[in-house]
Amino acid sequence: MAEDISIAILGYGTVGSGIVSVLESNRDSIAIKAGKGINVKYVFDIRNFPGDPIEKKLTHEFETILDDPEIKIVAEVMGGIEPAYTFTSKLLAAGKSVITSNKELVACHGAKLIKLAKENNCNYTFEASVGGGIPIIRPLNTSFSAEKIESISGILNGTTNYILTKMADEGKTFEEALSEAQEMGYAERNPEADIKGFDTVRKITILASLALSKSVNSDDIYTEGIEAITPADMAYIKTLGSSLKLIGSYKATPKGVYAMVSPKIIPAGHPLSMVKDAYNAVFVQGNMVGNTMFYGSGAGKLPTASACVADIIDAARHPDINVRIDWDEEKVELLPIKDIPMRALIRVECDDIAEGRKVAQSLFQGCRVLALCELTGEFAIITGLETEGLIQEKCKILYEIPFIRGVANIIRMEE
Amino acid sequence: MAEDISIAILGYGTVGSGIVSVLESNRDSIAIKAGKGINVKYVFDIRNFPGDPIEKKLTHEFETILDDPEIKIVAEVMGGIEPAYTFTSKLLAAGKSVITSNKELVACHGAKLIKLAKENNCNYTFEASVGGGIPIIRPLNTSFSAEKIESISGILNGTTNYILTKMADEGKTFEEALSEAQEMGYAERNPEADIKGFDTVRKITILASLALSKSVNSDDIYTEGIEAITPADMAYIKTLGSSLKLIGSYKATPKGVYAMVSPKIIPAGHPLSMVKDAYNAVFVQGNMVGNTMFYGSGAGKLPTASACVADIIDAARHPDINVRIDWDEEKVELLPIKDIPMRALIRVECDDIAEGRKVAQSLFQGCRVLALCELTGEFAIITGLETEGLIQEKCKILYEIPFIRGVANIIRMEE
Repeated sequence: MAEDISIAILGYGTVGSGIVSVLESNRDSIAIKAGKGINVKYVFDIRNFPGDPIEKKLTHEFETILDDPEIKIVAEVMGGIEPAYTFTSKLLAAGKSVITSNKELVACHGAKLIKLAKENNCNYTFEASVGGGIPIIRPLNTSFSAEKIESISGILNGTTNYILTKMADEGKTFEEALSEAQEMGYAERNPEADIKGFDTVRKITILASLALSKSVNSDDIYTEGIEAITPADMAYIKTLGSSLKLIGSYKATPKGVYAMVSPKIIPAGHPLSMVKDAYNAVFVQGNMVGNTMFYGSGAGKLPTASACVADIIDAARHPDINVRIDWDEEKVELLPIKDIPMRALIRVECDDIAEGRKVAQSLFQGCRVLALCELTGEFAIITGLETEGLIQEKCKILYEIPFIRGVANIIRMEE
Repeated sequence: MAEDISIAILGYGTVGSGIVSVLESNRDSIAIKAGKGINVKYVFDIRNFPGDPIEKKLTHEFETILDDPEIKIVAEVMGGIEPAYTFTSKLLAAGKSVITSNKELVACHGAKLIKLAKENNCNYTFEASVGGGIPIIRPLNTSFSAEKIESISGILNGTTNYILTKMADEGKTFEEALSEAQEMGYAERNPEADIKGFDTVRKITILASLALSKSVNSDDIYTEGIEAITPADMAYIKTLGSSLKLIGSYKATPKGVYAMVSPKIIPAGHPLSMVKDAYNAVFVQGNMVGNTMFYGSGAGKLPTASACVADIIDAARHPDINVRIDWDEEKVELLPIKDIPMRALIRVECDDIAEGRKVAQSLFQGCRVLALCELTGEFAIITGLETEGLIQEKCKILYEIPFIRGVANIIRMEE
């Protein structure tokens, strides 16, 4: 067997220490797959880790790694845009392959870094950036290369899926479920990035860009989190036999492409409906292959690290070969939110239910009405397929009807 | 853009004509992904297709393809061992990459052909051989290269899954469901390969070999089909809230590895339980990534052809590079069937139910007893975890009890 290959890890947090664990746990089988042993030579972090096995490999100087000709592969698992972007750019420019789990950086600068890798005959790979250990980047880039990707619907955040599962199955409020998720270590003390959908929007940005081979801008994607979901919403959804998931979606329509992040009602029998707790799944429709789904642990130290190590092995297997990834800098114009087609469940607060139903049914032709015994002073409708803009306008009209108090929530439905 | 690349297709059946369709339907996006247009120069088949658009490309002479230096990539979609094996060997020896959907050939001679490809700096790839359009071969070979694969449980045959779905959901008998599958075009007129599990065993052979990077022999794998499944079996399974699937399974245990094909009871909530109709899914457990699942259309013209075309694009993208596939000729010894651990549902036919239960409970310590009002003269037990051998022996003892008429069926349960 060839000599060991030396790698460096930027960032010794959850994923960084996970990479060390995976390389250690599966050392022998990894050496066979990579064709050589993989040895961590440097760990870059601004912190110190006294007593840790990697203590002697720790460096606070990025240049030590950049300037070492022995280092051909670097795992960037620091997270955040800077200094990760500067470091990655310098490494790629020096012909060193970079593998990453940094969804924020990939979503923001993916196309540029892929181009830079190509120009320098090395690779920028990011399997771990979406869906943790679930293989989804490589399948989109290679297995589905003969497809036109028509749509992607992903449960891309474990924290929110855990919270929604607890709300649905155990009747908890959002606040109770969030506290539990924090106690279990599924949610951060500051859970904003998860519950407001910011984590999901980065991931759907990456998937949509790969589906189109062009650059989608995260800021263009309408993003709604799960904080407004209540037990009353869940009661209607349960009545339908459906479940509620935070979905990052991408869809190619005859009018253009759209992407969005929002809670969506998933009908029973849809493969996404059985994705519970902290699991993730990505449902992909191609114009030849039809419906497919990829399911697994979307986060967590070892699954995410495993995806990083698979990228490291790929780089070690095929040195000095740029593996083509189609993601150009050309920017994609997304359909504005108002033009996106949707069906929704709308909860109407109203004292005169009979009159309210009449109004709602005349506004939303052919809608289905739901009323639950336990929820007095309101009913819900399920609209037909309309545009977001039209539904919002009709809801404004509802507000103007004297005996209608308001609209408690509007929740989109997955087709 | 570079000049078009010319390919040949061996076999103009369902998959062969599907490849032509996929190349035609997605011509532009495929040209972008492959870096050049892909042009079918020859179609080899012993039949004639008068009036078909490929008529002018048809050849009955394999040597025309073998001897044409312009042809660097060939799709072998004839099926069967010969002449596919001879053709594939000659093509690889000539440095031409071969992509295939031929599960029989891959299961039988995969390791040899992969080695031959490596020696001649070309590729033998077979994404379409398992799970049709579901990406599973590439993920096992690349995305999970940092994993030790602990187990694989696959619904790998659409025909049998369709039949079992109809039996479970519509109360049909096996014969009724089979007839319907034949009418719908899901089952062949001679359905043996599907219903007896022969198709599934080839696929689990391929997956198990990739998981181990060694050669598993199909003939060593215990294989049981679905012909013996009755509505009475389904009644017990429904009572449990579970579903029944034909499962190809592989598992690494401390005592050794095993593989088998048999109907298995899948508990509610297991991701495989929602895989209905002709869909396939492969559930994979890795020692780092945990539980993952790959779901989609396991057969069908376009999904299977799409997987073939993805392999063609891969070969076109990276000419003259052998992409490493770890599957050595070294043979794997599987655990004998009698040593495989299992839990089972056993239907005991018996006139004196009370006495029968006592006997069964003393033989199968801690077993759970099920009795259904509509099924008189029998009851069922669910055993604890024992070995196949021990369960068979205990069932023989049951047969010797005078008031027990026999054992109607033994159905394994997925853990």
